[in-house]
Amino acid sequence: MADYTLTLNGLTCGGCVKAVKQALEQLEGIESMEITQDSANISGSVSLDLLIDTIENAGFEASAD
Amino acid sequence: MADYTLTLNGLTCGGCVKAVKQALEQLEGIESMEITQDSANISGSVSLDLLIDTIENAGFEASAD
Repeated sequence: MADYTLTLNGLTCGGCVKAVKQALEQLEGIESMEITQDSANISGSVSLDLLIDTIENAGFEASAD
Repeated sequence: MADYTLTLNGLTCGGCVKAVKQALEQLEGIESMEITQDSANISGSVSLDLLIDTIENAGFEASAD
């Protein structure tokens, strides 16, 4: 288990937030997530690289603080 | 090759449009696409079901006219 805080870029409305949530929900091992237009707080048995790749493949940008 | 016109729902800004484009760009066989918040015009060697599934997996709704 790990807790991640990511800075998000490119999300400009609630539809974007939903798209990021939807992408992350397809990953195994996520216990909880709180996503806003600016940040993601994610807990789970998942790697940071996979989280960032998943968000970037969904069309947005993410970086670890 | 086929040409599809889909009605889109749930896209509320340019970030959503970009997210849908990004999801579709990961498919093989797409020749061209024109995506707005309301519709998608797509040409390529790809099935309608795959297009709709891809858009829905990205967190949005799509239906064929």
